[in-house]
Amino acid sequence: MKKVEEHSQDLKTEYIIKQLGRTKNKKYEMYVVNRIINLIDDFDIKFVTQQYISRPERYALVDLYFPQFNICIEIDEPHHKNNVKKDEIREDDIINATGFDEPIHVDVDMNIDGINKQIATIVEKVKNLKLATKDFKVWDINKEFNPQTYIDLGYIDIKDNVAFHNISDACNCFGHNYKGYQRGGTIHKFDKDILIWFPKLYENDGWDNEIDPDENKIIEKDKTGKYRASIEDFINNIDKYQSKRIVFARVKDSLGNVLYRFRGIYKFDSINSNLDAGRVWNRVDTRVDTVPTSIKVHYSRDKDK
Amino acid sequence: MKKVEEHSQDLKTEYIIKQLGRTKNKKYEMYVVNRIINLIDDFDIKFVTQQYISRPERYALVDLYFPQFNICIEIDEPHHKNNVKKDEIREDDIINATGFDEPIHVDVDMNIDGINKQIATIVEKVKNLKLATKDFKVWDINKEFNPQTYIDLGYIDIKDNVAFHNISDACNCFGHNYKGYQRGGTIHKFDKDILIWFPKLYENDGWDNEIDPDENKIIEKDKTGKYRASIEDFINNIDKYQSKRIVFARVKDSLGNVLYRFRGIYKFDSINSNLDAGRVWNRVDTRVDTVPTSIKVHYSRDKDK
Repeated sequence: MKKVEEHSQDLKTEYIIKQLGRTKNKKYEMYVVNRIINLIDDFDIKFVTQQYISRPERYALVDLYFPQFNICIEIDEPHHKNNVKKDEIREDDIINATGFDEPIHVDVDMNIDGINKQIATIVEKVKNLKLATKDFKVWDINKEFNPQTYIDLGYIDIKDNVAFHNISDACNCFGHNYKGYQRGGTIHKFDKDILIWFPKLYENDGWDNEIDPDENKIIEKDKTGKYRASIEDFINNIDKYQSKRIVFARVKDSLGNVLYRFRGIYKFDSINSNLDAGRVWNRVDTRVDTVPTSIKVHYSRDKDK
Repeated sequence: MKKVEEHSQDLKTEYIIKQLGRTKNKKYEMYVVNRIINLIDDFDIKFVTQQYISRPERYALVDLYFPQFNICIEIDEPHHKNNVKKDEIREDDIINATGFDEPIHVDVDMNIDGINKQIATIVEKVKNLKLATKDFKVWDINKEFNPQTYIDLGYIDIKDNVAFHNISDACNCFGHNYKGYQRGGTIHKFDKDILIWFPKLYENDGWDNEIDPDENKIIEKDKTGKYRASIEDFINNIDKYQSKRIVFARVKDSLGNVLYRFRGIYKFDSINSNLDAGRVWNRVDTRVDTVPTSIKVHYSRDKDK
């Protein structure tokens, strides 16, 4: 058992206990998930239970997800479907599984020895993946949500599954120095053509937003007509506005906490956007540079990037 | 991992999954209980979760109980009491803990490493107890409920935590050969002074019965007056009736199944019994001989034993 470092121990304990203490109505889930985690016995490895993933063809709820290795475990119970409808999970944190391997399936329609044998194989696989990962990053529950981590790293990449607890933390990766609560988005400190945006990418009170399952396109629609005039102005006079957005989607993680999950940089699509279709945004990058704390120079505005 | 034998594998799998998949509202219970069982990793060892135990001074709900070694684990969560009132659990299967060691307490008010260290100690202790138990009996979920097991053994002892799923199974330990459903008690096949009795030892529709926490005394009271005449006749003419009872108390196990739990042999107390106080029964033995299948001789009636 790897030691949990002092400063993160309570958060991690809380996280582990909560994650392992819940099920989604599957009879064998508690046993299989707990046994896998207990036998891996290494809390340098992060895990998430009941993680939603999107694949091009479907949304699914996987029983166990290891973000460091991008592998998922599904427990196959008779008469239990992991497929879910998007509208059932609109607020939830959905990991995009494009490029994932197929989930590893645990067949529980057998006796305890047979189930344990499958679990042993998964435990072995995860342990070996850790050994085989050259730049393995130890799970540090404080570091992963700390903007300084990404400022030091120099970038935020979708591959690292980056999310923040607070809007201010995300903004501070881009030259700002907000303390505490920050209500909405803001403009990049050194690139005035970029808005840092924290949308609900699902239908909500004012907007009917959506994101494609592959996350390459966001459509932003005014639901009530309230913003008609300002959208018209935006579309016709894009030069007055930010044409790019760093997107942190507002979601709820599997424990019910609000997170702002990095989705990439999106560019306004002037051809396909109109009052009926809404504002269309296309992803132009899945990685964005962060701004070192020391930087004081004014970035040049590069609208054609 | 010890192999589960073929014939018992499905019952055992079912049992393990059910036992490990429930909690009694404690936040850390799922983690601690699952981790202990996963790390012991030996299903020759039986375990019960959420077992009621009675001690002379109190009734308690322990989080994990190992009947082969008579040890209990309690998870100490702040603001969570394991003590329970008897009337809350009147139907439940209660193990008498007289002579038990104190439960082993797991303090969860610390980080995951500290909790895991305590769990490691418990796992080590249980494994060592198995090694140190000379006549260790492998947990066999079919055998433990099969009357033939006790016929072959020659006796039923309270120390072995014996219970049956059916009244007929209990009766068949004493010379009978009932097939299937048997509604009530019956007389010992070869000792006409002994009734095999399956009482509810708590207040029910017709009777207000109770058993002492140390199980040495049973009081049987007619609640409605319906049986007044027959009780009077019983008290005044005990020679016409069975003065001894082999008691299998009707209880519900922790999964909600009805069980008939062996409590001992009780003898009618003619001095303390009367119409007001009820019939009083005192335990005279915690072990009773079973009747070999081959026996055809008529046991001599020995009323003064």
